[in-house]
Amino acid sequence: MSAIKTTHTIHRTHMHCGWDNAFPPVLHVEPGETLLIECRDAADGHFGETSTAADIATLDFDKVNPVTGPVYVDGAEPGDALKVTIGAFAPSGLGWTANIPGFGLLSDQFPDPHLHLWNYDKTAQQPAGFGDIARVPLKPFVGTIGVAPGAAGLHSIVPPRHVGGNMDIRDLAAGTILYLPVEVPGALFSMGDTHAAQGDGEVCGTAIESAMDVEITLDLIKGAAPPTPRFTTPGPVTRHLDGEGYEVTTGVGPDLMDAARDAVKAMIDQLTARHGLTPEDAYLLCSVCADLRISEIVDMPNWVVSYYFPRLVLS
Amino acid sequence: MSAIKTTHTIHRTHMHCGWDNAFPPVLHVEPGETLLIECRDAADGHFGETSTAADIATLDFDKVNPVTGPVYVDGAEPGDALKVTIGAFAPSGLGWTANIPGFGLLSDQFPDPHLHLWNYDKTAQQPAGFGDIARVPLKPFVGTIGVAPGAAGLHSIVPPRHVGGNMDIRDLAAGTILYLPVEVPGALFSMGDTHAAQGDGEVCGTAIESAMDVEITLDLIKGAAPPTPRFTTPGPVTRHLDGEGYEVTTGVGPDLMDAARDAVKAMIDQLTARHGLTPEDAYLLCSVCADLRISEIVDMPNWVVSYYFPRLVLS
Repeated sequence: MSAIKTTHTIHRTHMHCGWDNAFPPVLHVEPGETLLIECRDAADGHFGETSTAADIATLDFDKVNPVTGPVYVDGAEPGDALKVTIGAFAPSGLGWTANIPGFGLLSDQFPDPHLHLWNYDKTAQQPAGFGDIARVPLKPFVGTIGVAPGAAGLHSIVPPRHVGGNMDIRDLAAGTILYLPVEVPGALFSMGDTHAAQGDGEVCGTAIESAMDVEITLDLIKGAAPPTPRFTTPGPVTRHLDGEGYEVTTGVGPDLMDAARDAVKAMIDQLTARHGLTPEDAYLLCSVCADLRISEIVDMPNWVVSYYFPRLVLS
Repeated sequence: MSAIKTTHTIHRTHMHCGWDNAFPPVLHVEPGETLLIECRDAADGHFGETSTAADIATLDFDKVNPVTGPVYVDGAEPGDALKVTIGAFAPSGLGWTANIPGFGLLSDQFPDPHLHLWNYDKTAQQPAGFGDIARVPLKPFVGTIGVAPGAAGLHSIVPPRHVGGNMDIRDLAAGTILYLPVEVPGALFSMGDTHAAQGDGEVCGTAIESAMDVEITLDLIKGAAPPTPRFTTPGPVTRHLDGEGYEVTTGVGPDLMDAARDAVKAMIDQLTARHGLTPEDAYLLCSVCADLRISEIVDMPNWVVSYYFPRLVLS
């Protein structure tokens, strides 16, 4: 998949559900080694090309978001930073986006299951079509990436934590360097839940969920654990979709969550009124391409959350 | 200031503090007219080229953020959208950024007044220097822009509302079209509090605050009031500063405000440790160029707020 020589491949059979620092490592590596990691999609293959919304009901939440690993990095100790350089992606070309009842920013307004299947360009160079209405530029990234927490026991995979995990940060893409705080010997690094595209917020709860193989280089910086994950992007982060500007809605008020919900609701209403999308489709489309930004968080007592929808998706 | 012919100029003497739908209009215009509006800075000239942090103590909060107006738009009625096309800016070239005790996202951690004065390129083409350490790309915009609320009485200018006001959205810049909900006959439009640059969040509470003249075209769309302000940008919104990518910190947890605070704190710590900035200077610099984004708001119960600092500012 690229000229980089990987020293190991971790196959998707080496997976685990949830985080537990007692999970035995599937591989030991030296700092500086490059791996090819096969990642499952968040539903672990539950959805295929003939799936419908009815199949959402049989999704097993105890098995969602499996991650591949863990990898033991020799010499890693609590207090170190694990430096993860994200390399090339080999996407599968098949993806799904769903509204899962009870999950998502507007779960109260969207109680019914909804599913969209994607068949997209494996090179991620061409946008993915959403019916005849929209074309979503792609930017593959890793949704779940982290190390084992220091606290004993099994921890749900769903929430992200200060050691990373299901962060769903859409810029954890090729070329980004991520720093994670090591809490147990060997770090016990795992990743999965790859996405072909997502906006900031992932508002409906899912992105373009898709299995991919990803190159990763693991290294250590002794004693440099950040308090929470931090990262460096290799360049601009939105140029693949900002060329025609944005349609922006706002939410204004004393609670950031309420303001975010208002902004997203206003955008869905606009897309529905102007572009003939159903509310359910508009919600899913927003989730894969539109960005939640905090415009101001200081003008007491009201904050502004803005929702940026890239115009070229619908042009 | 441009080839656009304005039909009226509203001088900065026509200002008001706070919002009140009983304020008499300073001008009546027909829909479609273009105005040149002289805007005062948020401190109304309180800071000059020889000011120091000690002058923050004498800032009169009852007089901050004066806005120029109000303008009565003929035919505007409650339920209409006021369409505001933002034209060219003529910045003054002088600006200030302050930490005002008791104000700002990290007011508990930064109790002391701090002031930075800017002398910047009036064409806004060259970045503004921050000592020898940083160069901040400029993008002039209107910090406070709105219409009179329907509710009677005097309302503070500080918080933004569903009718706009002190929104501090850094993309309300040249070429953007803003739609505001009209609540009283004539709309009673006012604006001020112009900024030469600001990041999403305006974390220290101030931007590069600076007086400017701005061209504005006011029009009406009957019966099309949005629930909260919305806008369309004419093109990309971050290309003036994203060329070298970003350093990003994160906050992870069940409260968006706490997560935002954690992310900003982590960035200030990094800038202080790596670039020799004082924490106070790092806080102010973040406010004028770095962006708060909500990376995910669905992976219960923990959300991720990320803080994006553009690398070219320090390169």
